[in-house]
Amino acid sequence: MTMAKPRIMVLGFGTVGQGFFELFNMKKHSLGLNNVTISEVVDAKFGHIIEPGDSIISELKGGKTYEKIDPVKAIMKSDADIVCEFTWLDLKTAEPAYSHIKAALGQGKHVITSNKGPSALKFRELNDLARKNNVQFKMKGTVMAGTPSFNLLELLPGIEVKSVRGIMNGTTNYILGRMVGGKDFNDALKEAQALGYAEADPTNDVDGFDTAAKIIIISNLLGWNHDFNNLKIEGIRKVTREQAANGTKLVAYADRNHAFVKPLQLQTGDILREVNGVMNAVEFETDTLGKIYSMGPGAGKIETAQSALTDLVSILNNWHK
Amino acid sequence: MTMAKPRIMVLGFGTVGQGFFELFNMKKHSLGLNNVTISEVVDAKFGHIIEPGDSIISELKGGKTYEKIDPVKAIMKSDADIVCEFTWLDLKTAEPAYSHIKAALGQGKHVITSNKGPSALKFRELNDLARKNNVQFKMKGTVMAGTPSFNLLELLPGIEVKSVRGIMNGTTNYILGRMVGGKDFNDALKEAQALGYAEADPTNDVDGFDTAAKIIIISNLLGWNHDFNNLKIEGIRKVTREQAANGTKLVAYADRNHAFVKPLQLQTGDILREVNGVMNAVEFETDTLGKIYSMGPGAGKIETAQSALTDLVSILNNWHK
Repeated sequence: MTMAKPRIMVLGFGTVGQGFFELFNMKKHSLGLNNVTISEVVDAKFGHIIEPGDSIISELKGGKTYEKIDPVKAIMKSDADIVCEFTWLDLKTAEPAYSHIKAALGQGKHVITSNKGPSALKFRELNDLARKNNVQFKMKGTVMAGTPSFNLLELLPGIEVKSVRGIMNGTTNYILGRMVGGKDFNDALKEAQALGYAEADPTNDVDGFDTAAKIIIISNLLGWNHDFNNLKIEGIRKVTREQAANGTKLVAYADRNHAFVKPLQLQTGDILREVNGVMNAVEFETDTLGKIYSMGPGAGKIETAQSALTDLVSILNNWHK
Repeated sequence: MTMAKPRIMVLGFGTVGQGFFELFNMKKHSLGLNNVTISEVVDAKFGHIIEPGDSIISELKGGKTYEKIDPVKAIMKSDADIVCEFTWLDLKTAEPAYSHIKAALGQGKHVITSNKGPSALKFRELNDLARKNNVQFKMKGTVMAGTPSFNLLELLPGIEVKSVRGIMNGTTNYILGRMVGGKDFNDALKEAQALGYAEADPTNDVDGFDTAAKIIIISNLLGWNHDFNNLKIEGIRKVTREQAANGTKLVAYADRNHAFVKPLQLQTGDILREVNGVMNAVEFETDTLGKIYSMGPGAGKIETAQSALTDLVSILNNWHK
């Protein structure tokens, strides 16, 4: 690997990929990263873009396309040091992101992803592969976008986490908030879809799978063995307006032995009860600080781009050690 | 400086000093810090303890004392690489902590402090001195003890902070909460004193000076020029029970051009309105994430010890670069 001039491949050039490209170019000077370049972009629709210029996004909007390439082949022959995996989510197979990340780590490339599929479904295998190849596998964007979540623990050396609790899905929290306002579930869901908070197929959000992936990822990073097989997952489809009005939220919880995602009525005085709209929040119960909280946006173009920038700087800082 | 076996001097062996001593010994193995030692303790009451053993605190409780030494003289002749300044607070003169820290930095020693005096009153001078001597001046414990506050920004490379807002004094927040419950200010203050949340002379807390020191420290770290001379400071003595019941909190605010501490009625839906009891919270308004929050305890023995441990690990991590 070239240490002096790190090169980045961006894989998947949709909202997140373009957001990262823009944010990286905006911030690289102030971060002292003039020696770092996004050397290539690979996208299913746009093709294989080598040495993309500053105006690439407007060129693509103007209809320009490049030669298609199989992403795994592109990774195998790439001289990039870091691969940013920003393709689409599949919480059943983790593909195609899983194959991309496996190929990149196997080639001794660092990986940054905001894709919950590989991180939740294949964590141990990919983490082991990264260690074996002496590279980093970073996934800040998978939980609460750029808002500090599990990486808060980097600021708390020696701390012991006893349990984690959170409201980690903005879509369901928005819907429940609208139900407090008197809408029924279906109308609130339609509104969330119209606003772009919920997808056409809302299953991942409203049935709790997105939240489950996040608590699984946090658990894995803490060394706790939870996965989709042992997790109890219940979404918000059966929550009534009355329950919503009484402080019911979709809560994710994990400790070393237990983990679940389910609607829970939160008590008055519980700060998580006050987390409204699309805001996300995570609580860590610890030995030295008791309960601490991080709150902020959990999704969005620039918010997720910030998470990838955070991961990038973390990789670069550790690189020179 | 010895790189292989870092040595620490603890200056001030009251609640915070003893808490740090205990926490360091409890966590050093799991943190891989077996090569690091607390090589000496200097305390106005207990004297100069060289190579303190694990049982030193119970020995001191049993009445054992050591030869007195002038702290600055102790620093000048010490072979410690890191000085932890844990003596008492004086928000008018910053002494004696200021003289201790100045001597330590001047001798090329890293400094860790939870003392708001030097950090708020002498920030620029001490920070310049640290840079000149190529050592670190760390003060996590001055704002919200070990709960992430300004150090959250280490997780957010490239982010631009537009403004900071917070509830950073547990004593006043507790008193206001009791006033919501129907007590008048004086009764609530007496209760806070009885519980150990407020000191016999409550001025620093209830008149806003403690909160002011914290927003000054954050401002300095962000490169904003605020100090006790330009800050508008108003405490909670004039807050009525009705105002408290309507969501009035003691709020600290800063942006590049303005800073204040004063009681403000927070709106419904403002998450800071829901921060109750002795809990502290800080909000950063940023360019890429909008508003993000950190919440948790702002004081306490082990909570402040955690902040010093965080600073220690940060110094050690950067040392080997």
